Amino acid sequence: MSEPLKVGIAGLGTVGGGVVKILQEHRDLLAKRCGRAIELAGVSALEMPDALKDTLAGVPWFDNALDMAKADGIDVVVELIGGSDGIAKTVVETALGAGKSVTTANKALIAHHGLALAKAAEANGGVLAFEAAVAGGIPILKAIRESLAANQLHTVYGILNGTCNYILTEMEQTGRDFADVLAEAQSLGYAEADPSFDVDGIDSAHKLAILTSLSFGCPMDFDGVYVEGIRNVTAQDIAFAAELGYRIKLLAITKRANGGVLQRVHPCMIKLDSPIASVHGVINAVVAEGDFVGRTVYEGAGAGERPTASAVVADLVDIARGISAPAFSVPVAELTDLPVQAMASHKGAFYLRLMVVDESGVLAKVSEMLRDEDVSIETVLQRGRAPGETVPLILVTHEAEEAAMARVLEKLTSMAEVVEDPALIRIEPL
Amino acid sequence: MSEPLKVGIAGLGTVGGGVVKILQEHRDLLAKRCGRAIELAGVSALEMPDALKDTLAGVPWFDNALDMAKADGIDVVVELIGGSDGIAKTVVETALGAGKSVTTANKALIAHHGLALAKAAEANGGVLAFEAAVAGGIPILKAIRESLAANQLHTVYGILNGTCNYILTEMEQTGRDFADVLAEAQSLGYAEADPSFDVDGIDSAHKLAILTSLSFGCPMDFDGVYVEGIRNVTAQDIAFAAELGYRIKLLAITKRANGGVLQRVHPCMIKLDSPIASVHGVINAVVAEGDFVGRTVYEGAGAGERPTASAVVADLVDIARGISAPAFSVPVAELTDLPVQAMASHKGAFYLRLMVVDESGVLAKVSEMLRDEDVSIETVLQRGRAPGETVPLILVTHEAEEAAMARVLEKLTSMAEVVEDPALIRIEPL
Repeated sequence: MSEPLKVGIAGLGTVGGGVVKILQEHRDLLAKRCGRAIELAGVSALEMPDALKDTLAGVPWFDNALDMAKADGIDVVVELIGGSDGIAKTVVETALGAGKSVTTANKALIAHHGLALAKAAEANGGVLAFEAAVAGGIPILKAIRESLAANQLHTVYGILNGTCNYILTEMEQTGRDFADVLAEAQSLGYAEADPSFDVDGIDSAHKLAILTSLSFGCPMDFDGVYVEGIRNVTAQDIAFAAELGYRIKLLAITKRANGGVLQRVHPCMIKLDSPIASVHGVINAVVAEGDFVGRTVYEGAGAGERPTASAVVADLVDIARGISAPAFSVPVAELTDLPVQAMASHKGAFYLRLMVVDESGVLAKVSEMLRDEDVSIETVLQRGRAPGETVPLILVTHEAEEAAMARVLEKLTSMAEVVEDPALIRIEPL
Repeated sequence: MSEPLKVGIAGLGTVGGGVVKILQEHRDLLAKRCGRAIELAGVSALEMPDALKDTLAGVPWFDNALDMAKADGIDVVVELIGGSDGIAKTVVETALGAGKSVTTANKALIAHHGLALAKAAEANGGVLAFEAAVAGGIPILKAIRESLAANQLHTVYGILNGTCNYILTEMEQTGRDFADVLAEAQSLGYAEADPSFDVDGIDSAHKLAILTSLSFGCPMDFDGVYVEGIRNVTAQDIAFAAELGYRIKLLAITKRANGGVLQRVHPCMIKLDSPIASVHGVINAVVAEGDFVGRTVYEGAGAGERPTASAVVADLVDIARGISAPAFSVPVAELTDLPVQAMASHKGAFYLRLMVVDESGVLAKVSEMLRDEDVSIETVLQRGRAPGETVPLILVTHEAEEAAMARVLEKLTSMAEVVEDPALIRIEPL
């Protein structure tokens, strides 16, 4: 049996605790699978959690994670501090600079600095691994990087944020509104006190930028992701979606189109028989479509102590076994630019909900507006009558241009009979 | 860039043609991803297919695949001849014996001889890879071997045979009977002229034996798999399943139980909201459950030229990149026996369809028989009345022992009022 792989963990929060548990509970199993032990050779955190005190007795403690990142007895640093910059970034840079390998669950760090870090790893002979950063326990990065390597991928999409999926599922199943369900999710610990990273789509966008680079061999471009969260999805929209045969999900979609790439995160209406329409609650799912393999689907827990730790330790097993492929599928120097396609170039069908004054002539006026922009209507729903009061008017369009819809929205917003800002949700034929 | 990886393909049928296409169409992409070219350096088949003549002009031709397996200019042999023994086996043994690597899509070969072949690979420094042998384009073997390596898996199950799933889907959607749909599947090329490998569950059992060894680190035991095919599933059973809230699928299930392992392939009734109940037609799906990651699900094309070739070439990419893990997750010498659990030890709920003479007292007699074996009834369905004629009597049991059910079946079969052999389908709470 070879020398043990010596691991230092920076950050002993939820995921760090899970990693410690796996290394302890599966010590023998891992040694058998790797042909060498994976040894916990250092830990660093703001403070030692009480729950880990006994387990970690005897493991070298570092007050400063940077010292651990430089320490002689450490082969791999597990970065679980979090944040796209600051100490997390410095620790990773330091470890890679010292020729060590790094595994991290930090999507913000990878989405913003992944290419520079991968380059540093390449230059110094270390490995940069981040399976846990996208879709938690689902092994989607390795699947794309290695298992689907015979394919040119053309489309990758998924449900990448468990908090949003939990909120949308709850809204659908209970008929409650966003704010109400969010408050409950916060009290249950499924959503952060400041939920904006999740519910505004930023977290999904971080993960999508990583998936795009890995899937298409282009540099990461987080700023090129069109992002819209779920704050404006109402219980009414969810009910109308059901009536139309759809379910609303926050999807992250990356697609090669017109010689470039279009990355977008926004609420979507998808058919109930779509492969991921039945993915409920905090579960994540990713669909990767390749030119030879066709459509492949991956589902599992997207977050949480144990699933995320499973992904982190899978990276450690790879490193212990000497398994590595380029972090972004090809060496950083060989990534090829793919021009960003603007969201305005997107085409698709749209769901529009207008809150209008219930009086004659409104539908005619709205229809005219759409016709003027070459947007044709597939379905109109007007439920309930209340002369003189506000009622919802639902329109579903045939395929139309995003740019034309933007112009329609502007005109509708300025129409006296339209009482609130119109709600628009894209319909995806997945 | 390093030396090219020199590949010889033995067998130019459907999958072989697909492999040739990928190596040609994605030559540059593969070279970029691997850091070296993957070069077609030899082919061998009974005859050169017309469709490949131009593409393969200039590629060295071997009349005898064994010569190619020994040839100096070949690093990896792709075995696509098929069959558990005979020439396929000799070619693989010869290549491994010569220190070369092998990738194969041959589940029968691996299910019967995989351990000996893996041992030969280990002894001679080659790699034995067979991602395409289980679930075609779905990268399930690598997922279990590498991505879930931090887990002790406890249950793995799936829809592993596209032909059976196609037939069951068609039967459900059209109400037709097995023989009728099978004949159509044969005329469409979805089922072989001799369909027994598929419809009798052998093909699924081959794949399950491989999954068991990889998942639980025990030696393969194909003979330990309980196997029942789909020939006896009737349109009536499918209709009653729907009425009871179930769908019938041929599942392959392997589970650690009582310190051992129970492997079984048989038709199952599963709830419509089970993660794989909506996997229709020729699509395959696998669910792997681990102690840390929880439940993960994988779906995709389980057969066909392009998806299977995608898996074969993924193995080649791994070999070109120098990526390998033990074929069965741990070195062959470290596999640990897990005692086979007999099917009689299984416990579960059962669906029973009896064709009985419609006369008073039959249900009482049957109920008594079940009670005597401690099998309690959850649901009884008697649809339609036809005094003196044959009608179906449907019973759904609570959890019962397989052994007790076997005794019940024997008694029922000898009952005068029971006109045909009783039909039994296991209900799985997945």
